[in-house]
Amino acid sequence: MQLNNMYIGIDGGGSKTEAMMCDEKGVVVARTVGGSTNVKSRSTDAIKQTLKELFHDLFIQADVAYEHVTGVFVSSAGGDRLEDHERWQDWIYEVAPGIRGKMDVRNDAYGALASGTFSMEGTVLIAGTGSIAYSILDGESRRVGGWGYLLGDEGSGYDLGRQALSKVAHMHDGLMELDLEFMQIMLTSLQVDSAAEVITAVYEDDYPRRRIASLAEHVILLAQAGNATARQIIGEALRSLLELVDQVHSEDVPLVLSGGMFQSTFMRLAFCNLFEKKYPHHHAIIHPDVPPVVGALVCALLLGEETVTNEVKENLQSSSRSLNRSFT
Amino acid sequence: MQLNNMYIGIDGGGSKTEAMMCDEKGVVVARTVGGSTNVKSRSTDAIKQTLKELFHDLFIQADVAYEHVTGVFVSSAGGDRLEDHERWQDWIYEVAPGIRGKMDVRNDAYGALASGTFSMEGTVLIAGTGSIAYSILDGESRRVGGWGYLLGDEGSGYDLGRQALSKVAHMHDGLMELDLEFMQIMLTSLQVDSAAEVITAVYEDDYPRRRIASLAEHVILLAQAGNATARQIIGEALRSLLELVDQVHSEDVPLVLSGGMFQSTFMRLAFCNLFEKKYPHHHAIIHPDVPPVVGALVCALLLGEETVTNEVKENLQSSSRSLNRSFT
Repeated sequence: MQLNNMYIGIDGGGSKTEAMMCDEKGVVVARTVGGSTNVKSRSTDAIKQTLKELFHDLFIQADVAYEHVTGVFVSSAGGDRLEDHERWQDWIYEVAPGIRGKMDVRNDAYGALASGTFSMEGTVLIAGTGSIAYSILDGESRRVGGWGYLLGDEGSGYDLGRQALSKVAHMHDGLMELDLEFMQIMLTSLQVDSAAEVITAVYEDDYPRRRIASLAEHVILLAQAGNATARQIIGEALRSLLELVDQVHSEDVPLVLSGGMFQSTFMRLAFCNLFEKKYPHHHAIIHPDVPPVVGALVCALLLGEETVTNEVKENLQSSSRSLNRSFT
Repeated sequence: MQLNNMYIGIDGGGSKTEAMMCDEKGVVVARTVGGSTNVKSRSTDAIKQTLKELFHDLFIQADVAYEHVTGVFVSSAGGDRLEDHERWQDWIYEVAPGIRGKMDVRNDAYGALASGTFSMEGTVLIAGTGSIAYSILDGESRRVGGWGYLLGDEGSGYDLGRQALSKVAHMHDGLMELDLEFMQIMLTSLQVDSAAEVITAVYEDDYPRRRIASLAEHVILLAQAGNATARQIIGEALRSLLELVDQVHSEDVPLVLSGGMFQSTFMRLAFCNLFEKKYPHHHAIIHPDVPPVVGALVCALLLGEETVTNEVKENLQSSSRSLNRSFT
C-alpha cells in the first residue's frame, strides 16, 4: 500500500498497448501489456475490454486505490485529434471510475521523445511501421510525415519492403538490371520460388502490409553486407528521414531516434553519419534505452507538476528495466 | 431459335463481369452484366450465383440451347494461372451443365487486345485501375507490369491519385513548394478542408483504393489546363507506361490502348506523342471502339476455329453497339 502520488503512462501502439505506473520518485511499481487500442483496427468494445484489463492489472500489482493517481498520460498513434482525446478520457473514466488526477492524451511521438530526453523538449524521429518527425519546443509542437503507408511514410519499415518488392518487379520485367543476390534473398524471405509468385504471396496474405514490412530486416542485412541494390534503398530511406527531421529540427535541441528501424545499429550509425554531415555542430543524438511507455510516465509526472530530477530519471530507468526483465 | 454455332465471351473485371453471346457471323444476340467474379473480393458462392444469372440471362435472350455453344472464352484479371483456369471451368460446367464447346480462360489482356485488333496478335497496354503491357505474337505471350497497387501499377489511375496525395503531403510538410491551385483542387475533390484531414478521409474510407483512384480524373483535368504539378505527375505516368510497352513491343505489330486512363483524349494523345517519338515508323495505334467483352467474343470465335472476316468484325461492332445502347 503506497501513499505517494501515483502516475500512469500508457503507450498505445498499432499492435499492442503498454501501461506502467510509478510513484512521484519515478519508481515503477507496475507494468502490463495488452492488445491494440487503435480504433481503426479494433472495435470500441474490444478496446475498452483491453483497457479494463490493463487498469485492473496495474492496480492489483501496485496495490493502490484509484484516488492516489495524480496524472495519467496517454501517448497514442493519432492521439493528436480532439475526438481521440475525448474517446480515451471516456474509456478511462468508464473502466477506472474512481480516477481523479489530471489526464492528457497526445500523439505517440510524446512518449517516444520523452523516453529519450526525459522532458517534453526536443525533436524525435520515429521510423518504425511508419515514419514521422516531431519537435516540441516551449510547449509548441510541429510534426512532419506520418501520412501512413498508402500516402507516405518514406523511410519506414513498410516503405523499405515495398521498395524492395518494386525492385524485384522491375528486375523481373527487365526494367532494371538483375541483382541476383538481392532477388534471391527477397524471394526466399517471402518463401516463394519465383518473382511471379510474389503477387499471390502479398495480395492473398491476410496482412499484406505486415508481409511487405517483414522484408525490411532483410534489406538492412543485405545493405550491411554491401549489396548495391539494398544500399540504394537504404540510402534513399535515410535521406527521406533526414528531410523529415530537417523540417522541424533546431540544432540546439536533442534529437531522439525511435522506432524499430533504429533497433538496427547499422541503420542508427548510417543515419547519424548522414545527420552529422548536415548538422556538424550538433551534440546530442539520443537512442533511448527505455521503451516509449516510460516516456509516457515522464509526461504523466510533468502533467502532475513533478520535477524530473536525475534521481527520478535513474529510478525510472532502473525500475522499468527490472520490471521489463521480470515480464520477458 | 438459332441453329448456328454460338459463342460466349466473358470479361471478368474487378468490379463487374460482362458477358455476350454471338453467332458464327459475329452477330451479338445477347448481352448481360453482373457483379465481380474476382475471387479476391468475393466468395466462391457469390461468384457462382453471379455466373448462374449471367448464363441464365444470355440463354433466355438468345433463345438457344446449351448444346449450340461451340466456344466459351473467359478474359479475366489473373486468369493466367492454372488454378483460375480450373476454377472458371468448374463454375461454368456447374451453372450451365449442358455446355459442350471448347473453353479457354486467359488474362484480361486477351479481351482487351482482341477488342482492338480483332485477332490474337499485337501488343496491348492497359492503364486503368492497374497497369500492364501484354504482347501476343505467334501464339507466344509476354507480359510486363501488373504487380498490383501495393507493388507497382505505375501509370494506373490509382498511381496518379497516390502520387497526387503524396505531393499534397509533401507540400503540407514543406518538403516541396506549394502549388496552391493543385492543393485546392485535390482537397476539394476529396471533400476535405485541409491537408491534415486527408489522412482520415483516406484511411477511414471503406474503400481507400477507390478514394485515392478517384483523384486521377482531377489530375488529368489539371494537367490539361496546364497545371505544372499535375503535368509532372502525368509525364512520369506516361513514361512509366512507355517503359512497359518497350519491354514487350515490336514495331511491326499494332499497339492497342485500353483501360480507363485512355478514355481521356488528352491522355491518349499525350501517350501517342511520346510513343511516336520512340517509334517514328510505327503505323497502327488502336483505341478500341468496342468493350473488352467483344474482344473475348473474338477469342471465342478463334477458339472455335471461325475466321474473323471483315464481315464478322463489322457484325460484332454494329450489333454489340446497338445492344449496348439498349442497355444504357
